[in-house]
Amino acid sequence: MDIKEYFNHQAAIVDRWLDRLTPLATEPPELIHEAMRYSLFAGGKRLRPVLTIAAGEMFGADPNELLPVACALEMIHTYSLIHDDLPAMDDDDLRRGMPTSHIRFGEAIAILAGDALLTQAFITLVATPQRDSSTQVRLIAEVARAAGTKDALIGGQVLDLHYEGKPVSAPQLEAIHRAKTGALICCAVRVGAITGGASDDELAALTTYGEKIGLAFQIADDLLDETATSEELGKTAGKDAATQKATYTSLHGIIGARHLADEVIREAIAALELSPSHLDGVWRDSTRLREIAHFIVDRRS
Amino acid sequence: MDIKEYFNHQAAIVDRWLDRLTPLATEPPELIHEAMRYSLFAGGKRLRPVLTIAAGEMFGADPNELLPVACALEMIHTYSLIHDDLPAMDDDDLRRGMPTSHIRFGEAIAILAGDALLTQAFITLVATPQRDSSTQVRLIAEVARAAGTKDALIGGQVLDLHYEGKPVSAPQLEAIHRAKTGALICCAVRVGAITGGASDDELAALTTYGEKIGLAFQIADDLLDETATSEELGKTAGKDAATQKATYTSLHGIIGARHLADEVIREAIAALELSPSHLDGVWRDSTRLREIAHFIVDRRS
Repeated sequence: MDIKEYFNHQAAIVDRWLDRLTPLATEPPELIHEAMRYSLFAGGKRLRPVLTIAAGEMFGADPNELLPVACALEMIHTYSLIHDDLPAMDDDDLRRGMPTSHIRFGEAIAILAGDALLTQAFITLVATPQRDSSTQVRLIAEVARAAGTKDALIGGQVLDLHYEGKPVSAPQLEAIHRAKTGALICCAVRVGAITGGASDDELAALTTYGEKIGLAFQIADDLLDETATSEELGKTAGKDAATQKATYTSLHGIIGARHLADEVIREAIAALELSPSHLDGVWRDSTRLREIAHFIVDRRS
Repeated sequence: MDIKEYFNHQAAIVDRWLDRLTPLATEPPELIHEAMRYSLFAGGKRLRPVLTIAAGEMFGADPNELLPVACALEMIHTYSLIHDDLPAMDDDDLRRGMPTSHIRFGEAIAILAGDALLTQAFITLVATPQRDSSTQVRLIAEVARAAGTKDALIGGQVLDLHYEGKPVSAPQLEAIHRAKTGALICCAVRVGAITGGASDDELAALTTYGEKIGLAFQIADDLLDETATSEELGKTAGKDAATQKATYTSLHGIIGARHLADEVIREAIAALELSPSHLDGVWRDSTRLREIAHFIVDRRS
């Protein structure tokens, strides 16, 4: 199975679990469940859950323990998109080729659908027992911190709003994205490894991998915004330039950003070259994680 | 210590813990932490945390285990107020006598401050180890469900928006408030009892108490909206009538609503009359919970 097939295969499994873990649209109050599902099943790439699965598989994690954690991250990612798209934030009408939540359901329900997906992520994390409660508490802690304000999801959005229209240095741009997209992507890798019982050294190596691909993902996103069409992206292309948002391409140029992405991916893959002492004597197959790293910068949407 | 002194005493302790459990306003990104603290320390009654403490004390819970859980509930309550006050929702300018979050910080930061307080609640619930991990997972599950969509906080706000300006029956009004305010109040009582190691029978009795006082709280709120001044309330009085919102007073009249509140409080207190077989042979002092029940309907703000 090549990496594209692997993504499609795992995304289909993730979708089935998301369907099972989210209240039905026929359950009252129907409107909020319909809105949660509208954004959850709007054709996302499922990058974060697939990362959790691939990292978990590397350590032989039980899929029944892995999938709820993977789905919780997708719920949090989806909530953050709904809130980021709101008129008071980025004011986007189009997401993944469909009207955004507030266009479809109105602002009040969009805000509540985001709140509900964030909450549902934690309901999901506690509803499915892990092999032991202390691992479960640890996983919840990982996810909660990655969704928080300190070098994490919400903090990144705050920085992003703060720097809009202002000159941004390379370190500032990295700080924004390390928080806004990097924290959750890195968390996705870590919770997969933790669910699989990775050792501390293995987890440290995968954390470096997670940080690097998070950064590479954002550089690739900025490149796509410059070079792809709105149709390919499913959202308004060229929006960053139009809103004078600082991006890797505005800072380094298209060629410079592409080189940076390649360099970061090399570093991500180097982190996976675990020395024998890190392997606890067990062979860990990191092929999928290496393929995903390349896929992240080669994607067209 | 009479019940007013008890509330003031416990509220001061809750405030110290909230201060410790919330990122400092000097920690970057400062603005979001400042906004979180602005709403968190705007002079709330701390009803939910005090309920958790009083229920926990009844079962001899360790304050160091109890207080973080109590504070997590106050964070969730505060997030829900920030989001409910937004222009797209109830559009309120004044809360607890101060400008609401979106008036003070703008809509984007208000939305994110709500998101951040919800997330901080879960960070708080995992950051402080409970006596055992399985109890900790159970407490997180209780809180997550009470904050969710099904007969819970977000679901109640959805129903509230749905019925605005429409005729509402008594059972519909009860369903709205059982979810919107009742779920979190009942949860506050339950998590206190669970932290203290209450038996299943004891927990069932306290759940009935929690449901009843949640209902009484809302009836009292509607009565205050009709009879108190904006100055006493710290928010716009008479707003429900002005927006033609269905309330217990519009449905039952002021005298009818007052009778209903008294009846519900009697039922709440009756639930605390645990039969000896429910007591596991241990005497449980429910004096504080009885006093709180009365306080809820007698308060002036």
